[in-house]
Amino acid sequence: MNVLIVFAHPEHQSFTGTMLQEAVETLEEVGHSVQVSDLYRKGFNPVPGRHDFLTAHSDSLFNYANEQSHAHQNQSFAKDLRMEQDKLNWADLVIFQFPLWWFGLPAILKGWVDRVFANGYAYGGGRWFGNGAFTGKKGMLVITAGGPETAYQSDGIQGPIQDILAPLERGIFLSVGISVLPAFVAYGASYSSDSQKELVLDRLRDHLQTLESKPTIAPPNPTDYDETLRRKPQ
Amino acid sequence: MNVLIVFAHPEHQSFTGTMLQEAVETLEEVGHSVQVSDLYRKGFNPVPGRHDFLTAHSDSLFNYANEQSHAHQNQSFAKDLRMEQDKLNWADLVIFQFPLWWFGLPAILKGWVDRVFANGYAYGGGRWFGNGAFTGKKGMLVITAGGPETAYQSDGIQGPIQDILAPLERGIFLSVGISVLPAFVAYGASYSSDSQKELVLDRLRDHLQTLESKPTIAPPNPTDYDETLRRKPQ
Repeated sequence: MNVLIVFAHPEHQSFTGTMLQEAVETLEEVGHSVQVSDLYRKGFNPVPGRHDFLTAHSDSLFNYANEQSHAHQNQSFAKDLRMEQDKLNWADLVIFQFPLWWFGLPAILKGWVDRVFANGYAYGGGRWFGNGAFTGKKGMLVITAGGPETAYQSDGIQGPIQDILAPLERGIFLSVGISVLPAFVAYGASYSSDSQKELVLDRLRDHLQTLESKPTIAPPNPTDYDETLRRKPQ
Repeated sequence: MNVLIVFAHPEHQSFTGTMLQEAVETLEEVGHSVQVSDLYRKGFNPVPGRHDFLTAHSDSLFNYANEQSHAHQNQSFAKDLRMEQDKLNWADLVIFQFPLWWFGLPAILKGWVDRVFANGYAYGGGRWFGNGAFTGKKGMLVITAGGPETAYQSDGIQGPIQDILAPLERGIFLSVGISVLPAFVAYGASYSSDSQKELVLDRLRDHLQTLESKPTIAPPNPTDYDETLRRKPQ
């Protein structure tokens, strides 16, 4: 597979950085091709604006979705977006690797989604979910979380990890047609001992070596929903 | 109440912009004081980095949480962060107003949280949830969502809106001690008729006029959890 890792940690000497290195090595050993979009290192701008486009549909009112659609039709996305879209087109698997901040993606990664998954390019005209622009691709989250695993269970103070990750996976991957592989979560990374970190890296290697035999969650099929977007009776 | 609205839409002539104007007027009519942090207009930078700090704890490894803690102890946050923290200190109610993008906050608002809710200032040293730095404050989401309301029900293609909003409310507001007021959601705003938009604005006014009688969700109490952060037996 062609694997794009979108990486969002400011420090390569962090444990998240070590995990990135391990991931790239493991994926290449297994025979995959890997590209990394290292968002902090490239100074990726996560804020949408007129700088997204080489042309303008309207100079007065700024309607972001309309401008995106216009740029898609005229192939006039700015260079930083075109580069990321090219990598996304190339990828069979997209991995988001990041520290879970406030139950979500760090802003620099959220802005990668906001800007790169543009109207016209990533969705629009009835293309979404099972009919999405990126059907056939897979997506996966690789996360470091601050607390221990017990904090992210149903009786934990943070609540079940699945309640945190499912909206990210559905809202981002599934909605554009990307099937979802099981997330990899490294808990308590910031206060783990070296031997605990080694165990996490072992677990990460195992996870990445067996990607192709893992079950995926497929996007729902839009034709199963009526015109109000509610599921039709079976 | 002192109300801080953190506003994240690039275009004031949008319906989200109209909703902001309506919100400010209604809240002031009721007798509240209002400040708006208009993130796009002020060019807020959502990406963390050394520019967050006037001093440095470590010049080599960039450990963001450690640098934040150091800055809090030395009152050396950069001016843009200090200004936002001052407004947050002043506020009894914090409103996040934004278009729901990919089931989440737009990057510029997510980065406001990532940078302003700094270690040492907003959490740390056992201060979180019911023991959090901002206990006594309230928080509320005011959202525009692309699809119709039926898409965000349990049989809708997007799934229940509560599954999308609860992680945002818990992960951001509750975790720093902020009690949560019911979110206001404007559905299908982008393709509504003028009369439908008027109805939304009416509903928004009603929602904001009766804030003080509305039930809130309180953060869980950390003393109800054991050292593994699981709920103690009752």
